[in-house]
Amino acid sequence: MRTSIATVSLSGSLTEKLTAAARAGFDGVEIFENDLLASPLTPEEIRARCADLGLGIDLYQPMRDMEAVPEEQFANNLRRARHKFELMGRLGTDTVLVCSSVHPLAVDDDALAAEQLGRLADLAQQFGVRVAYEALAWGRHVSTYDHAWQIVRAADHPALGTCLDSFHILSRGSEPKSLEAIADIPGEKIFFLQLADAPLLAMDVLQWSRHYRCFPGQGGFDVADLVRRVLHTGYNGPLSLEVFNDVYRQADAGPTAVDAHRSLLALQEAVGVAPLPEPVVPTGVAFAELVTPDAGPVAAVLGALGFARTARHRSKPVDLWQQGEARLLVNTGPAGRRDGTGLAAIGLESPDPAGAARRAESLLAPVLPRRRAAEDAPLDAVAAPDGTELFFCATGRPELPDWRADFADVAHETGAAGVRRIDHLALVQPWHQFDEAALFHRSVLGLQAQESVDVADPYGLMRSRAVTNPDGSVRIALSVGAAPTDDTVHAQHIAFATDDVVMTARRFRDAGGRVLPIPANYYDDLAARFEFADGELETYRELGILYDRDAYGEFRHCYTRTVGRVFFELVQRDGYRGYGAQNAPVRLAAQHGVTGV
Amino acid sequence: MRTSIATVSLSGSLTEKLTAAARAGFDGVEIFENDLLASPLTPEEIRARCADLGLGIDLYQPMRDMEAVPEEQFANNLRRARHKFELMGRLGTDTVLVCSSVHPLAVDDDALAAEQLGRLADLAQQFGVRVAYEALAWGRHVSTYDHAWQIVRAADHPALGTCLDSFHILSRGSEPKSLEAIADIPGEKIFFLQLADAPLLAMDVLQWSRHYRCFPGQGGFDVADLVRRVLHTGYNGPLSLEVFNDVYRQADAGPTAVDAHRSLLALQEAVGVAPLPEPVVPTGVAFAELVTPDAGPVAAVLGALGFARTARHRSKPVDLWQQGEARLLVNTGPAGRRDGTGLAAIGLESPDPAGAARRAESLLAPVLPRRRAAEDAPLDAVAAPDGTELFFCATGRPELPDWRADFADVAHETGAAGVRRIDHLALVQPWHQFDEAALFHRSVLGLQAQESVDVADPYGLMRSRAVTNPDGSVRIALSVGAAPTDDTVHAQHIAFATDDVVMTARRFRDAGGRVLPIPANYYDDLAARFEFADGELETYRELGILYDRDAYGEFRHCYTRTVGRVFFELVQRDGYRGYGAQNAPVRLAAQHGVTGV
Repeated sequence: MRTSIATVSLSGSLTEKLTAAARAGFDGVEIFENDLLASPLTPEEIRARCADLGLGIDLYQPMRDMEAVPEEQFANNLRRARHKFELMGRLGTDTVLVCSSVHPLAVDDDALAAEQLGRLADLAQQFGVRVAYEALAWGRHVSTYDHAWQIVRAADHPALGTCLDSFHILSRGSEPKSLEAIADIPGEKIFFLQLADAPLLAMDVLQWSRHYRCFPGQGGFDVADLVRRVLHTGYNGPLSLEVFNDVYRQADAGPTAVDAHRSLLALQEAVGVAPLPEPVVPTGVAFAELVTPDAGPVAAVLGALGFARTARHRSKPVDLWQQGEARLLVNTGPAGRRDGTGLAAIGLESPDPAGAARRAESLLAPVLPRRRAAEDAPLDAVAAPDGTELFFCATGRPELPDWRADFADVAHETGAAGVRRIDHLALVQPWHQFDEAALFHRSVLGLQAQESVDVADPYGLMRSRAVTNPDGSVRIALSVGAAPTDDTVHAQHIAFATDDVVMTARRFRDAGGRVLPIPANYYDDLAARFEFADGELETYRELGILYDRDAYGEFRHCYTRTVGRVFFELVQRDGYRGYGAQNAPVRLAAQHGVTGV
Repeated sequence: MRTSIATVSLSGSLTEKLTAAARAGFDGVEIFENDLLASPLTPEEIRARCADLGLGIDLYQPMRDMEAVPEEQFANNLRRARHKFELMGRLGTDTVLVCSSVHPLAVDDDALAAEQLGRLADLAQQFGVRVAYEALAWGRHVSTYDHAWQIVRAADHPALGTCLDSFHILSRGSEPKSLEAIADIPGEKIFFLQLADAPLLAMDVLQWSRHYRCFPGQGGFDVADLVRRVLHTGYNGPLSLEVFNDVYRQADAGPTAVDAHRSLLALQEAVGVAPLPEPVVPTGVAFAELVTPDAGPVAAVLGALGFARTARHRSKPVDLWQQGEARLLVNTGPAGRRDGTGLAAIGLESPDPAGAARRAESLLAPVLPRRRAAEDAPLDAVAAPDGTELFFCATGRPELPDWRADFADVAHETGAAGVRRIDHLALVQPWHQFDEAALFHRSVLGLQAQESVDVADPYGLMRSRAVTNPDGSVRIALSVGAAPTDDTVHAQHIAFATDDVVMTARRFRDAGGRVLPIPANYYDDLAARFEFADGELETYRELGILYDRDAYGEFRHCYTRTVGRVFFELVQRDGYRGYGAQNAPVRLAAQHGVTGV
């Protein structure tokens, strides 16, 4: 189907918005009135720019408070409409949106509304324009889509139809019953379909609409159900995003437009009109790759954690460190020298690496070269929104290229300390792309997104949201800082699963590792909240181990000091399903204390 | 009265919070549980630190979901309470807050609640602790202050009282009737009073409470009325701020604590318990002072606007430019060389400059030296939260020092172009201190704050809020950018009032001034929205004049290009009361276009 986006959904000048929409693959745009007024381009130049970019102008919305008003005001409205219809001819667009009136002088008179909208449509018709009438959720007298449709039907004018908007409809409640009347509208009388999702917030609907809308799949509405119903009427116009969002207003238009278009691709897949390659859900973590200018500090921590350097890349300065099924690549190539020590890539075990890459590419993930160097094994990989490289791996499956073929074993001693595998990876997301990150991991990788939780850092409130595969063998905790300014304060981390965190932490410490010190007050509180076996709490206190419990089981975990932008966690989860969010404020405060931030 | 603040209201480590609270003049703190848990200081060290800083610990709140629960769970709660009461002994605090339960197992049984709270109070009494029971607005069975008080009364225990919290009470509605039952509570049974204000948002009360609280006077609650009622009962404990606010969590604790204490000083004045020096409302703008490393560009713009350089400071590189009653100081001293061209100071005409300074000082405004140099006339001045220096002036009043005495007239030609006075000053505020700025201008200067409005910049949503004196001769528009990162994008500006903006703009242009170019599309829209006399719109188009209208009259205005961080506006307001917010998006887009941002 044709995809479109309202310019108000993107940041920047009109030119920047159009360029971003075209590059992301949209077929058209809705021109938002203020974007046109503020543009130095004439309507003809805007039309030409759009044509050059391959964009149609699918809708214009310059009018409000049009209908059911005293005749004198309506005459003024018609006068204004004539100006705008002329402008639409210059722009080369033929559909105008008219939202239900919020004017204090508007009267509750459907017949008058229908009569005036009919006269507006008469005028529109002279200019080759169609009028799409839409119910605002906070319209003064018309606030539901079926009410708007009744008025359109009563006017019975070929140039008058209705516009459906998922926000205005679903923000009023989404019981299936309330949507049944959509089936009564003939598809050809639905002139336009605007789409937005939103988090389920109990707040004033006008504020909710103006600041918190998001792209389909990022919020709590069942947008797909609504779209299915609309398509069932025979509607074949564009799927058009109209998203008012304070964060997108600030974010670079380019990534936002990609995020937006991805949401429509996933939506079309969900409603069955544009199939994508099947999702290939990862089945485990093959490796995590750290880049660093100096392998020493990382190697010291990994060694103390019981990892052994088991192999070395045949042609590049990359070591493989392994313990159980936990594998870390330590790369001392150019990236680490440029960016410092950080988590640069994740290898995901995939039942079908090539299929996973096709899926990712179809959802606009940047595909990385299959071979990074001529001598490397071919490996499918894409970039996540935060820049992390995701490799789709087939470890130890002879029929498929194996990333380990690039590595030659080296002699090593086994110092295993009980680490079994990577439990989860925690990645700080760019502030403006937190919602995008969750949608990416869900739609591209087929992971499931958990609830978003607030976490109090001493210097601001963070948010965190995990995405996981069904058996929990892939868990990625996405987090975002309190403000665009503090991306760098919060480090990424890699959590290793152990069956006995006390044993592993003790070996780590005895091998010279330094755990993050946890305040004594924390343990006094644990003693108040839970009952422990004799000596248990003293052990935790000694080793900096934190404790939590949920309905499913217990959780014990501890942290290393930070190296560059990375630290490590040891976790023992005995049924527990969370990530220790209860303890995160203590951990964050301790990290600020240690780093002196 | 004693003033206190909950540590959760401030950003940073516990040590940073305590230091900031003490420096701002608070008498005590409430220790928030997580701040204690995350602190490396022992309870004894925290106690000593507070004592060193002159702070009492007025409240501790480590317990929740205490009452009306099954006996087994209550036994656990008592066990936990014993730990916390011991801890309170180490901290040296004797009042513990217990909020009404939100636990799913809590039952709707006031008698059980009273019985269990009585047993808790028995235990507390053994440790010299008092229990203050408070109704959370979202408590499971107890959500109103009078309900909480009924339970406390039924328990009838000397160590059990109630805590009143303005947010929990006023968020449920503030009809005076709902507050009448406060008078029924004996003052000695009100163990604590927590204060927070909040903007009037129609949203889920839990989210509202956790993210949007603010200091009294910054929101929409009548906190003063509530406090009056509580004091009338005989309550003589602390006035204690407990403010959960996402912005304060990020902001430097120092300024936030000053802002917080200022709010309590103004509140005590409002309820009549701690008089301050009378507000001295400014009666006009004496001057605005620009600093610049190079007077040339500023002088060129001022000259074209019809200003003449009429005087020069006797000992400093400061020129006085004047036209009508509009006066600008152009200072080429060190500040401009350091910071570039910007608005550094405002002279406010004051009926009583010394009184105005006393008022400001009593409300914690930093007082600036009366004489900036030995040879200067003495002048009362304070710093606003954004660093702007505010001078309290008595221009042309022989009985008082006159700032103009420092200036010697210079020969000049009059090039007057119709500017009569400074209409308003627009100042971008530090992102984290927008609410503080409004409270400062209101309480310190006695100005009235108008409604806050959203303004769409191409790169994010700004907010703007004007403060004015009663006759509009002092108008300051405070604005804040979309994110902490973009303080610098939006320039300050000075708007000059003219009776004929067309004439003034034309003279400006003819004298070589460059107006901000406004897109043709804007004028096409004006033509659609309004009817103009023949040629009127063409004149506006030619001169870059924008137009707006409100219920009170018409508004015509235009802008100069930006010099450094400052630009100028010419405004003709014929009854109009606003600031052209309708046109601001067009202006902002044009400024981005011109500066290439």
